[in-house]
Amino acid sequence: MTISFADPKSFDHTELEEGTTFAPRFDANGLLTVVTTEDGTNDILMVAHMNAETLSLTLETGIAHYWSRSRKAVWKKGETSGELQEVVELRTDCDQDCLVMVVRQTGRGAACHTGRKSCFYRRVLNEQGQARLEDTGLPRLFDPKDVYGG
Amino acid sequence: MTISFADPKSFDHTELEEGTTFAPRFDANGLLTVVTTEDGTNDILMVAHMNAETLSLTLETGIAHYWSRSRKAVWKKGETSGELQEVVELRTDCDQDCLVMVVRQTGRGAACHTGRKSCFYRRVLNEQGQARLEDTGLPRLFDPKDVYGG
Repeated sequence: MTISFADPKSFDHTELEEGTTFAPRFDANGLLTVVTTEDGTNDILMVAHMNAETLSLTLETGIAHYWSRSRKAVWKKGETSGELQEVVELRTDCDQDCLVMVVRQTGRGAACHTGRKSCFYRRVLNEQGQARLEDTGLPRLFDPKDVYGG
Repeated sequence: MTISFADPKSFDHTELEEGTTFAPRFDANGLLTVVTTEDGTNDILMVAHMNAETLSLTLETGIAHYWSRSRKAVWKKGETSGELQEVVELRTDCDQDCLVMVVRQTGRGAACHTGRKSCFYRRVLNEQGQARLEDTGLPRLFDPKDVYGG
């Protein structure tokens, strides 16, 4: 069974922002931005995208499915690595073009393909007009070579 | 003084993901996605975009500046509403096309133009194959009509 979504063009501003109809505003490429956070800690694990098909799959199965823009394919998160994400809650923003997905990260707890818990493991510093990155010290929970080969 | 950013095309995969050079990968429209969270609680307040100019302004001033896609203009968050955001930390993701920005939300503490703390005030429910929205109960901290007119 596939979930079909309401067409946002048939709703006005107020209905989109205050209503109870889910009418996701997919972009010109048919995608929504999804921010994935960890249940309990609120930590941001990753940011990725869903199209209508993977949004429907996610809602139906309770397991995170994204759309891989690089592979142009359905991306069941963790299918290779074992790091599946169980959906606890999905929220939309005011104008319905972005989602927050709260998950339980399974496996070793690493959402990032580098083996870290989160993709956001470096901070940006402004040092006298020069921007540079500094590692925040998030440990690697797996070695990508072991998981993905290479 | 304006900060100039390294060109990601001159870096390989490993340098982009593990290096200390900030080389933001702006998309075809010259934009990065920015997820803004509240210092202390980790709550996601909003998701918006920055171009090179507003990223530079944000790093220089320590006050959140976004790029408004609808108005096609620099958007100093809170300039109209008074809800300025003071930047505590800016982080990049592994492939440098997305940022997380940790802020102190000033004013009444409402990041959303609807007057709520966060734009993510509705959850998506799947009820027998039909998706619908349910309010999570986030209160309005201001009346948009008072702040923006209308």
